[in-house]
Amino acid sequence: MTQTTSPTLAEIQAPVRGQLEQVREELRRIVEADFGFIAEVNAHLLQMQGKMLRPTLLLLADQATGPADPRAPTLGAVVELIHLATLVHDDSVDHSVRRRGMPTINALFSHQVSVIMGDYLYSRAVIELVRLADLEPLRILGRVTNEMTVGEMRQLLAHDRLAFSEEQYDLLIMAKTASLLSGACETGAIRAPAVQRQAMREFGLRLGMAFQIVDDLLDYTGDASVTGKPVGADLREHKVTLPLIHSLPRFTPSQRKDVTALMASESPTDDQIAAVVAAVTEAGGLEYARERALALSTGAEAALDLLPPSPARESLRASIPFVLDRRS
Amino acid sequence: MTQTTSPTLAEIQAPVRGQLEQVREELRRIVEADFGFIAEVNAHLLQMQGKMLRPTLLLLADQATGPADPRAPTLGAVVELIHLATLVHDDSVDHSVRRRGMPTINALFSHQVSVIMGDYLYSRAVIELVRLADLEPLRILGRVTNEMTVGEMRQLLAHDRLAFSEEQYDLLIMAKTASLLSGACETGAIRAPAVQRQAMREFGLRLGMAFQIVDDLLDYTGDASVTGKPVGADLREHKVTLPLIHSLPRFTPSQRKDVTALMASESPTDDQIAAVVAAVTEAGGLEYARERALALSTGAEAALDLLPPSPARESLRASIPFVLDRRS
Repeated sequence: MTQTTSPTLAEIQAPVRGQLEQVREELRRIVEADFGFIAEVNAHLLQMQGKMLRPTLLLLADQATGPADPRAPTLGAVVELIHLATLVHDDSVDHSVRRRGMPTINALFSHQVSVIMGDYLYSRAVIELVRLADLEPLRILGRVTNEMTVGEMRQLLAHDRLAFSEEQYDLLIMAKTASLLSGACETGAIRAPAVQRQAMREFGLRLGMAFQIVDDLLDYTGDASVTGKPVGADLREHKVTLPLIHSLPRFTPSQRKDVTALMASESPTDDQIAAVVAAVTEAGGLEYARERALALSTGAEAALDLLPPSPARESLRASIPFVLDRRS
Repeated sequence: MTQTTSPTLAEIQAPVRGQLEQVREELRRIVEADFGFIAEVNAHLLQMQGKMLRPTLLLLADQATGPADPRAPTLGAVVELIHLATLVHDDSVDHSVRRRGMPTINALFSHQVSVIMGDYLYSRAVIELVRLADLEPLRILGRVTNEMTVGEMRQLLAHDRLAFSEEQYDLLIMAKTASLLSGACETGAIRAPAVQRQAMREFGLRLGMAFQIVDDLLDYTGDASVTGKPVGADLREHKVTLPLIHSLPRFTPSQRKDVTALMASESPTDDQIAAVVAAVTEAGGLEYARERALALSTGAEAALDLLPPSPARESLRASIPFVLDRRS
């Protein structure tokens, strides 16, 4: 890694700040509805403003691979919209009540509204891509959306499954998280030479896998006051992630008994969770996951060497430690 | 109407029988998944074989408007796939347990699986349309899918709403049902002259509205042993449809009290439902809905006059009494 201190999001977004404002405007335009109730749900969703990581990567990829594509802000908005649609359906599937510090659509309205609203947002994204009259972004983002549904299905089956392998975990995080980050980067490079487009796709894939591994690590190591969710929330929901997968074969019989009991319990106690977190830490599961995230980052950085030097490329590089070192 | 006896589905499908077999094969190919669990859900869905009304209309529209388009069976499969995806999400939203005589995905698996599976099917449809490398079907079906989500949202708000107007009802059935039938007909005519394409779109819109009105009428008049659901099932779920909308201003104060009580009751009794069905019948709500369906059919038939004579056009014409006279 060339950077040792963690860059801020604002630093990373600096080369594309003006375009990100356009992305926000495009987002508002695209979701607009003349049906009052949908407009109301939209207003709530747009308040749930996230980090805009996916549009940022798309805009940086665009800038790093040639002259600016005037469609980039629209494409950035579509990528964020697909992300939003996925979150709305995920929250409904997971019965989550809060997201980014705000009530979820399913909590504020209903499960029904969430299902329909996710479909609404996704179909709006398709309409907008058709309007751009270019099949390439549709090809990338259609594939990505399908991969994400397969990832969600894998996630469902990863519950209560102590036999879940690292290979299955990799497939899960590629589909669930890395595919859209990869798709965002690739979409930013659709007009670039094939080698650069492929490099952006690879960059996004590795960054996205590292992103999800760090996310799963934070469930073991995070500061609840920063992450906004208690340590062990995944374990409480019986989600099996990399630290546990790596640790399981290294557990003592008694530790193994503890984790089996946790998975069998409808509502695990804080003590049960603390015991498994301690066992995973002792077995080296956290270090191992950290090492895998670092190795993926190195791969992501290597992909950037295929692009010509530019401030946008350096921002893409800076997004790596940003993802690795985040606390929430 | 030129036909007085109701044609069978087999008669209507005669000109496109061979292609319908190809639609079934395309459907299997498009949904195919290498992830075991999705393959399992797919197998269940494909058993839930419906009437294939939408692909039938698409193939007939194709044949009635010029030389056969080799992409028509694939387009037919995509339209059926979008229909299936919508059913899967609708059943999840409505908590329905049976569909076409089989358990729904949410009943057999879970609500979560339904949400994800609907997304899976829909994204597969998009991928397949991109593969055909023609923006026109994507334009039509993207718009249609979005309209259907707006229709579903309108449906949600039509619950418990005695103030629901006939105009709102029209918007609801156009969005929920007629848009996809219209889109299927229009997609079958994408290579036809604009006037024929527009005629097919209008035909599908009117046929689709008539279809939904008949569906809503069957809830009042149907034979439970044929429709597969008890009379008054919509009323039981507090769904306000055309027969009731028309009757409400004509109700006596006592009838008005009955329907208000039904809507206020969490689980209306059979007597409550029978009383409202009787009141709607007495107020002429059934006749009125029937007349509106007939008027729409006449409009649908008029649109067909813009096509040259052909067996396919006569099959499209025959689909009108088929829709009007169906018992389930």
